Amino acid sequence: MSGPNNEATVKAQFCFDFGSPNAYLSHKVLPAIEARTGATFEYVPVLLGGLFRLTGNRSPAEAFAGIKNKQEYGRLEIKRFLKRHGLHAFRPNPPFPVNTLQLMRGAVATRSDGNFERYVEAIFKAMWEDGKKMDDPAIFAATLTEAGFDAEAFMHRIGEADVKQTLIDNTQHAFDRGAFGSPTFFVNDEIYFGKDTLPYVEEEILRVKG
Amino acid sequence: MSGPNNEATVKAQFCFDFGSPNAYLSHKVLPAIEARTGATFEYVPVLLGGLFRLTGNRSPAEAFAGIKNKQEYGRLEIKRFLKRHGLHAFRPNPPFPVNTLQLMRGAVATRSDGNFERYVEAIFKAMWEDGKKMDDPAIFAATLTEAGFDAEAFMHRIGEADVKQTLIDNTQHAFDRGAFGSPTFFVNDEIYFGKDTLPYVEEEILRVKG
Repeated sequence: MSGPNNEATVKAQFCFDFGSPNAYLSHKVLPAIEARTGATFEYVPVLLGGLFRLTGNRSPAEAFAGIKNKQEYGRLEIKRFLKRHGLHAFRPNPPFPVNTLQLMRGAVATRSDGNFERYVEAIFKAMWEDGKKMDDPAIFAATLTEAGFDAEAFMHRIGEADVKQTLIDNTQHAFDRGAFGSPTFFVNDEIYFGKDTLPYVEEEILRVKG
Repeated sequence: MSGPNNEATVKAQFCFDFGSPNAYLSHKVLPAIEARTGATFEYVPVLLGGLFRLTGNRSPAEAFAGIKNKQEYGRLEIKRFLKRHGLHAFRPNPPFPVNTLQLMRGAVATRSDGNFERYVEAIFKAMWEDGKKMDDPAIFAATLTEAGFDAEAFMHRIGEADVKQTLIDNTQHAFDRGAFGSPTFFVNDEIYFGKDTLPYVEEEILRVKG
């Protein structure tokens, strides 16, 4: 994981929204890919709801709601991914779907101001390990406090114009480059969608690095 | 490729409909997987339209019609797959989507009566290399003749009750086992959907074979 000043020879990016379980799952395995490739992923906060508005796309939960077998298969893919990567802490978020606007503004703010890694760990854990309802302001504030942030100052900061605008810009830029969901990866200008493309992301990083 | 009497130690199955470009693409790489694993895929004709009726699912072309970036990404995935596997003959089918009922009945009939492999090669080629409108009876008949079949006898045969019923049964059985689209693979009772799961299909075959 790195901030915006990552200067690896290959630009690997992870466009994520905390509301996506597959973003959480990807986040958990990126360190292993970084270790194998020597690349460092730049984490780019985007608003999934914004991408959906720009593209007309919907969440799998919504798009596949009435389709028999399809959601069962999605759960099976998650189960296989957890097993393959030895992940034991994941559990579905009961209040899902969650409005992630404030969470993603927090990612933008910490990416700019510092403590981004600590914030990302805390929010992914709250969402996809502890099952918290993170669009409840009191629960968000408690999670921030527990993670060592000054919740009141934090909430003030994420209401500022530069933070709001950066999230909008990140989302628009990801859309302009071809994104329609989360997680989206870029290896330089090559786009990859979904956790199951991670082997190809890794391969492309190694190819570019020569 | 094999008929129903394949007796490999692992039961690997490929549920396909000729109307699916991703079934064609999978078909082209199964021989390499068979060579590496020693397994033989049983080809199971299913009617994608029937699976869609049973599940409420729709084709990607229909489901993603209005979604920006999503179809472009699907085309990019096909392009990458072609490059990875050195496939040069594929081209989109202009009259797509195609009603594949007669084509799939033909697969059932030849699987029962013989010349299944020759039929499968001819139809996949007509659909996804030659861009033919295969739900046009005259074009279907010409393709059959060119492939060495007696078109009139063939058309008679695929109208018989046992052929029709087997296609219905295959489709229902695939649905009962969790299928919702094409291509679907089974390795014993483990289900995999889509061409991009083929590395996992291969891995599972090798795992089962020990």
